[in-house]
Amino acid sequence: MRILLDVMGGDHPPEELVKGGIEIGRHRGIEIAFSGDPERIESVLAESGEQSGRTFHVVPASEVIQMNDAPVRAIRDKSDSSLVRGLGELKAGHVDAFVSPANTGAVVAGSLFSLGRIRGVPRPGILAPLPTLEGRDMYLIDVGATADCHAEHLVHFGRMGSTYAQEVVGIENPTVGLLNIGGEEGKGNRLMAKTYELLRESDLRFVGNVEAHQLIQHRPADIIVADGFVGNICLKSIEGGVSAVTSMLRQSIRRLFLSKLGALLMKRTFASLRAAISYEKRGGAPLLGVNGIVVIAHGRSNAEAIGSAIDVASREVEASLSEKLGVTSPRSDHHGG
Amino acid sequence: MRILLDVMGGDHPPEELVKGGIEIGRHRGIEIAFSGDPERIESVLAESGEQSGRTFHVVPASEVIQMNDAPVRAIRDKSDSSLVRGLGELKAGHVDAFVSPANTGAVVAGSLFSLGRIRGVPRPGILAPLPTLEGRDMYLIDVGATADCHAEHLVHFGRMGSTYAQEVVGIENPTVGLLNIGGEEGKGNRLMAKTYELLRESDLRFVGNVEAHQLIQHRPADIIVADGFVGNICLKSIEGGVSAVTSMLRQSIRRLFLSKLGALLMKRTFASLRAAISYEKRGGAPLLGVNGIVVIAHGRSNAEAIGSAIDVASREVEASLSEKLGVTSPRSDHHGG
Repeated sequence: MRILLDVMGGDHPPEELVKGGIEIGRHRGIEIAFSGDPERIESVLAESGEQSGRTFHVVPASEVIQMNDAPVRAIRDKSDSSLVRGLGELKAGHVDAFVSPANTGAVVAGSLFSLGRIRGVPRPGILAPLPTLEGRDMYLIDVGATADCHAEHLVHFGRMGSTYAQEVVGIENPTVGLLNIGGEEGKGNRLMAKTYELLRESDLRFVGNVEAHQLIQHRPADIIVADGFVGNICLKSIEGGVSAVTSMLRQSIRRLFLSKLGALLMKRTFASLRAAISYEKRGGAPLLGVNGIVVIAHGRSNAEAIGSAIDVASREVEASLSEKLGVTSPRSDHHGG
Repeated sequence: MRILLDVMGGDHPPEELVKGGIEIGRHRGIEIAFSGDPERIESVLAESGEQSGRTFHVVPASEVIQMNDAPVRAIRDKSDSSLVRGLGELKAGHVDAFVSPANTGAVVAGSLFSLGRIRGVPRPGILAPLPTLEGRDMYLIDVGATADCHAEHLVHFGRMGSTYAQEVVGIENPTVGLLNIGGEEGKGNRLMAKTYELLRESDLRFVGNVEAHQLIQHRPADIIVADGFVGNICLKSIEGGVSAVTSMLRQSIRRLFLSKLGALLMKRTFASLRAAISYEKRGGAPLLGVNGIVVIAHGRSNAEAIGSAIDVASREVEASLSEKLGVTSPRSDHHGG
């Protein structure tokens, strides 16, 4: 298995991401191709006692798509960017999956442009893992690939999410919930009423509406379906709530304990808490519906997070997700199984 | 000033809400009318050494709109409910404001049905106060009155929210942000692109897009505009994130300290934290755009929360918000100033 990692467009320097890639490549015994500035990549490989061409590969790219670049224009104008080159490798079948911590909009636009959509899937969706206090993750789709959705798009998100949960996560017969502002049928806006109807009539294991305050603390379904705008607002709002409460607690504790003892005692708690909640540390979010395995890593990904994103990609490849979703890229034809 | 409190439709027994009403009535020197079961109301008044007809009044109602009643049908079928009777008192000009902890959908439907909309306002919006770590609240509108919005509706939410912030809260020249999934202009879905344009061209002090993860921890604007579906998802997601992190911390602390000492030390911290974050304890959310002063209290309102909701209503009355928004109910004509 060979996974391509775009090392240029994230918030952390490419060196750190290359290190993360080397570590997971060794640990998991998978080949990693790095797209980006060849000198910077080669120099980290040399430092780590590796050379390109065996387990690790370099895909040279002279341009970088920045976080604030307008996605569609950036894809068109920066044809020698690490993102466009990397997707080209996936399209050509040289690698099995593509992982990038770049501008989400650019990864989506680039994937649509290079790979196209899977046949029969009207719109792509990004699936984000959400931790739950019950222990097992659930999966929210879409969190931002498609901001204007029709009901049919949401049903396809449910279908792709179910395939993912079953094939990659190993959840038998996964349940699907609809993110809505009330529990009963008929709640919400017109889009939700229509989507509810279609989901109920579908072959999916639909369990009805799910409300946002139930997420994290409970696990109302394996897959939660939302339009990309709403899913993104939901994810960011949870993040905001969690950040606020941790800051606030940190202040209170400092005040209350009047010494550093409390802070020390709490440090471990906070670390495990943030690791569980933080989207950053939890690696990659699969972009489903494009014609290839694409994983979007958080822009703030460090070496550890990038390893986790690659791990997500490798599990998709191992599970032959391409085949199950109907991806028709050359690589998946030969190596998907 | 006279404020009507619907004591029947919440999660807590009417007796508790009547007590809350008596307390705030005495404390603030305002008259409170209670709509609901007259015997239960009179009995609490008697116990508290009060009698109806002076500071406290009873508006008898034999029916109750339940939390799970379908709003529009409930309003039509239960004409002798505490909610419909209470709104009738407001419509007739017998009271200055209406406060209810009932089914939000039913309060919205009932307000539209009894009072109608303010002239020139296409859709009503519920304004929810959000605490921030910077100390001062900000205001999110709409959090669920109008689930299907056009751009013009959102501009009106911004306008009504600004009037509220200026007149009731006392914020001079309040800023308005648009809840969106990216910072730059052009981000988000079609509705957001259109709304951004209209807000920029409006006479409001528009500061651009605001992202959900900035809320609570920061205070990007005085007023945050959202369509009712998205605003509700945002609010509930924050609530979910906060609840999850507090449960998780409580568990970790219990485990870490191995004794009840830690729990005792943390108790005060949690109490103040939840008081600041919890929507429940923060009283009422004004329903703006209907032709009268209506405040929606949380269904889970206890005596303390109901006092706070009445306080919100009284501040709207004191600030002559009706006049500023263009409300034309008989009471505001005579007593609004």
